[in-house]
Amino acid sequence: MMTIMSSQFQPVLDSILAEIERTPGRGRSADYIPALAAFDPRRFGMAVAELDGTVYGVGDWQQPFSAQSITKVFTLALDLAREGDELWEHVGREPSGNPFNSLVQLEYEDGIPRNPFINAGALVVTDRLQTRSGDAAGELLSFLRAESGNLALDFDQEVAASETAHGDRNAALAHFMKSYGNIDNDVPVLLDQYFRQCSIAASCADLALATGFLARHGIRADGSRLLSRSQAKQVNAVMLTCGTYDAAGEFAYRVGLPGKSGVGGGIIAVVPGRCTLCVWSPGLDERGNSVAGVAALDRFTTLTGLSVF
Amino acid sequence: MMTIMSSQFQPVLDSILAEIERTPGRGRSADYIPALAAFDPRRFGMAVAELDGTVYGVGDWQQPFSAQSITKVFTLALDLAREGDELWEHVGREPSGNPFNSLVQLEYEDGIPRNPFINAGALVVTDRLQTRSGDAAGELLSFLRAESGNLALDFDQEVAASETAHGDRNAALAHFMKSYGNIDNDVPVLLDQYFRQCSIAASCADLALATGFLARHGIRADGSRLLSRSQAKQVNAVMLTCGTYDAAGEFAYRVGLPGKSGVGGGIIAVVPGRCTLCVWSPGLDERGNSVAGVAALDRFTTLTGLSVF
Amino acid sequence: MMTIMSSQFQPVLDSILAEIERTPGRGRSADYIPALAAFDPRRFGMAVAELDGTVYGVGDWQQPFSAQSITKVFTLALDLAREGDELWEHVGREPSGNPFNSLVQLEYEDGIPRNPFINAGALVVTDRLQTRSGDAAGELLSFLRAESGNLALDFDQEVAASETAHGDRNAALAHFMKSYGNIDNDVPVLLDQYFRQCSIAASCADLALATGFLARHGIRADGSRLLSRSQAKQVNAVMLTCGTYDAAGEFAYRVGLPGKSGVGGGIIAVVPGRCTLCVWSPGLDERGNSVAGVAALDRFTTLTGLSVF
Amino acid sequence: MMTIMSSQFQPVLDSILAEIERTPGRGRSADYIPALAAFDPRRFGMAVAELDGTVYGVGDWQQPFSAQSITKVFTLALDLAREGDELWEHVGREPSGNPFNSLVQLEYEDGIPRNPFINAGALVVTDRLQTRSGDAAGELLSFLRAESGNLALDFDQEVAASETAHGDRNAALAHFMKSYGNIDNDVPVLLDQYFRQCSIAASCADLALATGFLARHGIRADGSRLLSRSQAKQVNAVMLTCGTYDAAGEFAYRVGLPGKSGVGGGIIAVVPGRCTLCVWSPGLDERGNSVAGVAALDRFTTLTGLSVF
Repeated sequence: MMTIMSSQFQPVLDSILAEIERTPGRGRSADYIPALAAFDPRRFGMAVAELDGTVYGVGDWQQPFSAQSITKVFTLALDLAREGDELWEHVGREPSGNPFNSLVQLEYEDGIPRNPFINAGALVVTDRLQTRSGDAAGELLSFLRAESGNLALDFDQEVAASETAHGDRNAALAHFMKSYGNIDNDVPVLLDQYFRQCSIAASCADLALATGFLARHGIRADGSRLLSRSQAKQVNAVMLTCGTYDAAGEFAYRVGLPGKSGVGGGIIAVVPGRCTLCVWSPGLDERGNSVAGVAALDRFTTLTGLSVF
Repeated sequence: MMTIMSSQFQPVLDSILAEIERTPGRGRSADYIPALAAFDPRRFGMAVAELDGTVYGVGDWQQPFSAQSITKVFTLALDLAREGDELWEHVGREPSGNPFNSLVQLEYEDGIPRNPFINAGALVVTDRLQTRSGDAAGELLSFLRAESGNLALDFDQEVAASETAHGDRNAALAHFMKSYGNIDNDVPVLLDQYFRQCSIAASCADLALATGFLARHGIRADGSRLLSRSQAKQVNAVMLTCGTYDAAGEFAYRVGLPGKSGVGGGIIAVVPGRCTLCVWSPGLDERGNSVAGVAALDRFTTLTGLSVF
Repeated sequence: MMTIMSSQFQPVLDSILAEIERTPGRGRSADYIPALAAFDPRRFGMAVAELDGTVYGVGDWQQPFSAQSITKVFTLALDLAREGDELWEHVGREPSGNPFNSLVQLEYEDGIPRNPFINAGALVVTDRLQTRSGDAAGELLSFLRAESGNLALDFDQEVAASETAHGDRNAALAHFMKSYGNIDNDVPVLLDQYFRQCSIAASCADLALATGFLARHGIRADGSRLLSRSQAKQVNAVMLTCGTYDAAGEFAYRVGLPGKSGVGGGIIAVVPGRCTLCVWSPGLDERGNSVAGVAALDRFTTLTGLSVF
Repeated sequence: MMTIMSSQFQPVLDSILAEIERTPGRGRSADYIPALAAFDPRRFGMAVAELDGTVYGVGDWQQPFSAQSITKVFTLALDLAREGDELWEHVGREPSGNPFNSLVQLEYEDGIPRNPFINAGALVVTDRLQTRSGDAAGELLSFLRAESGNLALDFDQEVAASETAHGDRNAALAHFMKSYGNIDNDVPVLLDQYFRQCSIAASCADLALATGFLARHGIRADGSRLLSRSQAKQVNAVMLTCGTYDAAGEFAYRVGLPGKSGVGGGIIAVVPGRCTLCVWSPGLDERGNSVAGVAALDRFTTLTGLSVF
């Protein structure tokens, strides 16, 4: 099964697109901020990037959308590259496994979030990258531009402003962790950095390319090393166990790849040593994952056998 | 990295044994029942089984120990083989992610345990296998004997009796789920089946061989199919996300393989399409996983590159 | 306001009955066992007993109904009389304050229930009285017969059998606490004692009289002392803070008297130094308290000024 | 027992002082802000105020201390006086009953705090009073000055500044409730109001007098009505069930009076229709209540029989 040719990716994607278009029911777009509600939930795009940067795509694979929580993967990698294992004293690596909000677990565990992909954990990671870099959002944007080769990538100021206006829950998380001494920066500074990161608009092609270092065991597009082989493996492990909100088990079960979703409807996924994927469709299920996105990835691993299991 | 020869497994194991023997600190053996406390926590054994049944071993790899929760993997597979996806209406597939006992989550989720590897979930699986087979423990024992080729495998009646005498917490779980209609059999019947399963004594060699069907995508040792390819992948996914109590994220991060531990000090692990492993050392960490066992598997994936990530 | 004459109780009761009869909406009878569902939820009775045993009544005040959790007050008093403050090392005195079942709190607090009026706490009290008396249910029945002067009071075997058949949740609680060492007796023995107590059928007149010792600062109907003055005060305090499930604050706010409700639709209440009350109406609100019962007690304290506040 | 003469209050207080002075062990002063840690935990004062404003005192009964959470009672009364029962749609009346922080319960209950005396609930009350009065802290200060007759009562700016500097947890609560729409004002404005209220310094004499309206069924010192009789009763009920953090049951059990404590070491208590009390001793138990304060109130009700039970 592991002998699929790269030249076969395009027909696989075409086949997936045809199936998705036949499928009714796509869930609902996120609507807590206007910018996210703007897209038709039935839109769909998918891209596969090989290790050498060749990209295959289908549907709206070049349409920019709001990356949202997908950026948490890159922020994690950038901070790990700067401070290494010390990060793990401030954020855990266990699935949250809780149908309720992470505030409950923060209380049980003295202000240490369970993992870097829940909001509380991502706030800690951004806080630490901000302390080390002086401009966490800027460092993230530079990285994404470099890896995707798309210098037009940028923050969406309107989205960032909307997030800030609806930011009380994240403010609560940040203040709460600060009360435990687990946040360094002032809360308004941190939230500004955090919401700008989430607002970055990118396409499936951009994000599949930007994820490439995780399939190349830590090597960036230009051949330089961002993470050690061991660190790259670890980020993949955290994606597999914690990357899709409360549905990580379901995602592992159906797709069987390290992945990370965002409420903008995007999902990135990694086939270590082989390729990376990004799929986008704005309609979400009740756990916040793209309905057509999960279905497309499920179909991809079934058709190609490229699951890690 | 994926080109390791099978003939290299023996030197890898020898190297791991040497390292483990140099390492101080092994945790403590479980002591809630006398039979588990009997072994020196420093004992250590490890076995690798290839797809064709060739086994390599080191240390106490032929010493029988109490399989305990490792048996949950086989019971899950046997019930899935009988009833298929209907099982998943009665037990979830998400990590428990909770430092507290699963009773809390059972209340949140109306008597549906989060996954088949927490005690509540394993009780449901055993209950369903009992209803379908009439003798869940017997079916498990037959399966393990057949796969390992060791007809001397048996229940340890003393261990089963001790578990029963300390079984109030499992009785509470069973009654609680029965109050939600999620247990069919009478609670004492179910507990008897459950504790006998846990009591099975087997060696690293036995358990590595018995796990082979998960590396062979569902095919048993005799070439017959137990699970579909898709089901085998799914069991591996559940092991990776839920197999090591509250440390599944840590295990994925360090080892990067589907695995399942037991309080007897054993851990099984799967390299899909390549081999299976079982390691044993009775000293446990505070989350119930074998200290030397996790270290040995961590070392194995580092030395061979045989992680899924 | 504290100068109401006893001779005024009858007109007050008549007035309350008239108001209740004009009020639409009575909630629903408990229906988890058939015996409780048998009564029309609109039935209503109320009795006031003076310290000397004079009883005033209205409506169905002589109709026996299932006392259910009201018996927890008497079992608590009987066990306190036997063992004194040692009881409080095994059960707390704080409101449960939790919309969820007490299992959660049992886990947080190592098997010590929050108070004697949640099911877990009542199981502990019954367990301890059983150990000390050899027949907890028998001791309770004797006490109720003596205080009410009604020798026909008895267990309702049909109700007890129904409770047993639906007893998995209480079995779970008992096993769970036994796993912490906080239950002495075998679980089936304890449950038999517990369900028989709950099954006792008594009228408003019977229960108002039986509660008299709490208004008489610990003195029984025959002039002998059951509890010290201080203990009687303490039982009243626990009733006020914990007597009406998750609605203790609401009950204190509206009624302002120590009280205890049962799912049979009864509520007892105490005006220390003055009188006791029992009201019955089978229709319950969503928190398990009699709708017309709470309304009638609210009206009683408003009309007479006999609140403790 | 209810026939104690007012002239007997002074000898009762003298007797209590003598006992307290003989008692070793006083707990520890709060030390999360410097101003609270300044007092010797062994200091002690107590005052009783009759309905007509006569005050009896002993020990440090005229020493100003930080009122802290005691002010929550007055803010509640002032807001109830302004908006009446509408308040109860935004804050509950049930004991919190939870050893953990109220964030957990806020999540369960969609941003509605359980009662007005936990921090979350007090923030809601202050927010609503601020919206209605334009200066919640100023209205509180005016009220306390008028009732106590002490025009020198004032905010302690140093304490308020310290609280603000350690205010992340309260900021988290406020933002969290605002995310549910249950806070009107901007969070920094609300916190400024809240911390100034808590900072008011007053003596036992001042606070016993200021509490008088709750013993006079709603009538202020000048004879005007602040609350209806029914509202005054309700505030007393909420104090009894929720006034002493997680120890409300214990306080009701030992003292048997509506009461409210603060981390400054003060406790106010009400004997409806008879008198009010305030006791102060800075040493706290592990639940935040004054050790000598609770002991003194316990002794007072035992010596005078003036419990509500």
